[in-house]
Amino acid sequence: MPRRNAPFSIIRRLPIYLRILDNLIKKDVDIISSRTLSSRTGFTAEQIRKDLAYFGAFGTRGTGYNTVYLRDKLLKIIGLDKTNHTVVIGSGHLGTAFGRYILMKNPYIRVVGMFDVSNEVIGKKVEGLTIEHIDRLPAVVEEYKVKVAILTIPSAKAQPIVNQLVNSGVTAILNFAPTKLNVPEHVHVHNIDLTIELQSLFYYTVFEEEKDLI
Amino acid sequence: MPRRNAPFSIIRRLPIYLRILDNLIKKDVDIISSRTLSSRTGFTAEQIRKDLAYFGAFGTRGTGYNTVYLRDKLLKIIGLDKTNHTVVIGSGHLGTAFGRYILMKNPYIRVVGMFDVSNEVIGKKVEGLTIEHIDRLPAVVEEYKVKVAILTIPSAKAQPIVNQLVNSGVTAILNFAPTKLNVPEHVHVHNIDLTIELQSLFYYTVFEEEKDLI
Repeated sequence: MPRRNAPFSIIRRLPIYLRILDNLIKKDVDIISSRTLSSRTGFTAEQIRKDLAYFGAFGTRGTGYNTVYLRDKLLKIIGLDKTNHTVVIGSGHLGTAFGRYILMKNPYIRVVGMFDVSNEVIGKKVEGLTIEHIDRLPAVVEEYKVKVAILTIPSAKAQPIVNQLVNSGVTAILNFAPTKLNVPEHVHVHNIDLTIELQSLFYYTVFEEEKDLI
Repeated sequence: MPRRNAPFSIIRRLPIYLRILDNLIKKDVDIISSRTLSSRTGFTAEQIRKDLAYFGAFGTRGTGYNTVYLRDKLLKIIGLDKTNHTVVIGSGHLGTAFGRYILMKNPYIRVVGMFDVSNEVIGKKVEGLTIEHIDRLPAVVEEYKVKVAILTIPSAKAQPIVNQLVNSGVTAILNFAPTKLNVPEHVHVHNIDLTIELQSLFYYTVFEEEKDLI
């Protein structure tokens, strides 16, 4: 089946399968059934079989999936076999924490640049990587053919940086700035707005019986 | 209309309206139309009217919404008028960055505790708040009647802490640990898995014409 235009809901589950396969491979497990994948993910076995079948026939009926084979296929499908470079723009507390987190915890993704405008952080090292002035961003994006960028800068400063990223060839942005970014159709933006995530949870602190009394 | 059981998709849009109203109130704007709200959020005016009408009749046809009135209603609907306490569990780089971010940037939510098990961070101050040993968690949750907790601890340590939180009365958890948490039905968990968010974006770095060749 064609890979193109897979629904984002499927795409988002692939890294979950990838993580489980990585753990199994570390423990020398060769084969996993969709039922075991189900109990580890909380998705139904049928959902998992459907997700994977969207991209090809990777399993053997009655046996399951070969862990290494499926892991390698997933890396290809996600696109992590071709390019794994990213940059973190904005090296305040949040940007630095994310950069460090990816550098330490993510086996498939390589942070090739961290940037800021403040002299307070430029020159500092994060897990061996030196924070640079944002003027260096286009050169680094070009040198490493960066396609994915992480944005942790104030809302007011986001759009001009995004325009620059798009012009330099970036096609996907993980945006933590609490603002709507304007990008061309071929660029994919995923927003994580921590204020919204947290505030919306407070809805679940009011007891049901109180909810009609507003 | 009843407030109870509002779809989460609506709930998640309310903090976006709240942020826009706050900015307008700062600029002494009294009235806002659903059309202006639409241009600022990217949602259709119809969607916005529907979202708000779910909870009551807050606007005047042909005029719009009174900003202060709607802001206060939204705070009530979300539940931020009753309790606004939260705790951050796990004060590594990510937890500290989130704690600091909320303490500095979030007018409606108050971090009343940050916790860890490591002597390296216990006792340190984050924006005036001292990181405490996790043994202090139940006492702080009880004292401040905390209902919402933020979890930034390793996956393997998450479930026992979650059980403790639920027993102490927490009803909503923002979970950054990349693992599935087991909670009773009345507890709402929202997962943010940074690895998944980032890895899934790499799907959008492979050119369309290459996607059929896997």
